[in-house]
Amino acid sequence: MKVKELGEFGLISLLAKLVAKESQTAAEIAGDAGFRLLLGIGDDAAAWRNPPSTELFTTDTMVEGVHFVLERIGWRDLGWKIMAANYSDIAAMGGTPLYSIITLGLRDETSVEGIVDMYRGMLAVAGEYGGAIVGGDVVRSPTLFVTAALTGATEGGIMTRSAARPGDQVAVTGSLGSSAGGLRMILQGLSFRSEVASHLLEAHHRPRPRIAQARILKDIGVLAAMDISDGLVDDLSKICQASGVEGVVHAEKVPMSPLLEEAFPTDSLSLALGGGEDYELLLTAPDATMKKASHALDVPVSVIGEIISGEPGRVTALDKEGHAKHVPKRGWNHFG
Amino acid sequence: MKVKELGEFGLISLLAKLVAKESQTAAEIAGDAGFRLLLGIGDDAAAWRNPPSTELFTTDTMVEGVHFVLERIGWRDLGWKIMAANYSDIAAMGGTPLYSIITLGLRDETSVEGIVDMYRGMLAVAGEYGGAIVGGDVVRSPTLFVTAALTGATEGGIMTRSAARPGDQVAVTGSLGSSAGGLRMILQGLSFRSEVASHLLEAHHRPRPRIAQARILKDIGVLAAMDISDGLVDDLSKICQASGVEGVVHAEKVPMSPLLEEAFPTDSLSLALGGGEDYELLLTAPDATMKKASHALDVPVSVIGEIISGEPGRVTALDKEGHAKHVPKRGWNHFG
Repeated sequence: MKVKELGEFGLISLLAKLVAKESQTAAEIAGDAGFRLLLGIGDDAAAWRNPPSTELFTTDTMVEGVHFVLERIGWRDLGWKIMAANYSDIAAMGGTPLYSIITLGLRDETSVEGIVDMYRGMLAVAGEYGGAIVGGDVVRSPTLFVTAALTGATEGGIMTRSAARPGDQVAVTGSLGSSAGGLRMILQGLSFRSEVASHLLEAHHRPRPRIAQARILKDIGVLAAMDISDGLVDDLSKICQASGVEGVVHAEKVPMSPLLEEAFPTDSLSLALGGGEDYELLLTAPDATMKKASHALDVPVSVIGEIISGEPGRVTALDKEGHAKHVPKRGWNHFG
Repeated sequence: MKVKELGEFGLISLLAKLVAKESQTAAEIAGDAGFRLLLGIGDDAAAWRNPPSTELFTTDTMVEGVHFVLERIGWRDLGWKIMAANYSDIAAMGGTPLYSIITLGLRDETSVEGIVDMYRGMLAVAGEYGGAIVGGDVVRSPTLFVTAALTGATEGGIMTRSAARPGDQVAVTGSLGSSAGGLRMILQGLSFRSEVASHLLEAHHRPRPRIAQARILKDIGVLAAMDISDGLVDDLSKICQASGVEGVVHAEKVPMSPLLEEAFPTDSLSLALGGGEDYELLLTAPDATMKKASHALDVPVSVIGEIISGEPGRVTALDKEGHAKHVPKRGWNHFG
């Protein structure tokens, strides 16, 4: 079978099963060294206990022509974006990003000045959010790609995808859809007044990982969270799958920037529901915890739906009249 | 400037300087979380203290057409080899490999059965040497590539590239050159009797990381070590560069398998001095420590040279008559 026939998530699920079946002994050996695995494949980051810390480990890759077009994003923003995406995965667990290792797959012709500029973008993330680049690997490759692997840590518990419970409210930080709006603007060569254009481009190229906010959420008792990278509905369905619950989203409650609505008056909601690369936090918690959350954070926390018992992984987006809305998939990474 | 003009090591050196200059604050922030960086860019793995552990972090990538030809190595051995190369980096520091995250850059047409088989090869390494695969990322890519990132740990100190001192002896574990012999056999389509052919192929496709041996070396006081991936002379020059010393190798003392010598009677020494991908340990230590080392290990420890004060990074390979030998570079990763 070809990868495009099975698809990304089918392949990941197949590999996760294989790993689970064959690696019990291996995990026990790691456990003997005092490192007890908490979370393997299937969350934003892997996690293990090394008392008093819980340590986190994640990675993210961007391939030219698949995840970015260099002439459009530019080297510096590419560096920012891949680091920010990684930092966002650690944030989603409630952790502090620590050490990064960068792998560069470069063509012979790749510009050295460009790579230096990309590193400046990466270092800007570390400068703003902590952590350091501590190593890497440079390899020759016919296709340009960049992989960042990142460790993180936290004391105490972590937020996971599997802790959503029926009765929880579903909320997101910030606003959604602007990153996807920025992508559409670029791909379709659209023009907007400068405030709109900068907002959309900034959202798409320079996402801001919600590290401090996620730590606060964890501290006030939020147990279920992830970051939104594949799109709100898609990502909520991952939480629901991992937690064995069903989710409902009330489309009119999904927070969007007025600038996004100005740019795409008819499509802004689709972009917010399915666009992806928002790198905002998606969380579920009981009403009382959610109230605390919206008071504690310096960014808006919008309750947009609820968790119910039902079909695991199923998410329905309802319009104001209570009709289910179709949410198109973004499909960055979809094979075939 | 293009990458091919600056070269791999020039680029790494440039990026290391940039990171050192710009990331002091970032490293301090990580330090505030209780993780004190010991080693950043420039050794086999990054290392930081998280008492009582020293934690290690490394990565390795293999790109189709650059580092492997799938039809030659086969999926399972590819999985073994990339994991073994990573494990060898952690071994070189005296550490225990713990958790791996795998990034797969896949074409639409890539075979799912092949990937499953590659994972079996990876899991075989974890099964034999400990550790576990805990996560990953699957991305679409026009060029097939596999990246493994690996954490490790050790209690107490680590072995580094910067601890070689004048007067130290230089030694290697096992025998060298067979992996490069295997590569040449494949590339040139050579035929040998089956014992020779299997030895060379096994050396090239299924290297054995010297994890237990490295831990013993560390425990008996060896301070300077790395694993041989780019070739003996090239890698010794990295130790000498990092330590500010010069190295001498006595070519006739370099250990080689009789099977390699049978296959390449005139070229075996070149393969052993410059071939690479041996994944044996290269270490330097005073005479007394080296004596203990050769008694303590279950594989041969061959003293092949010495460290002198002189030009930092310079390594001379001498033949029996004391003449300097030219050692050709392997150039896997060399751009241009």
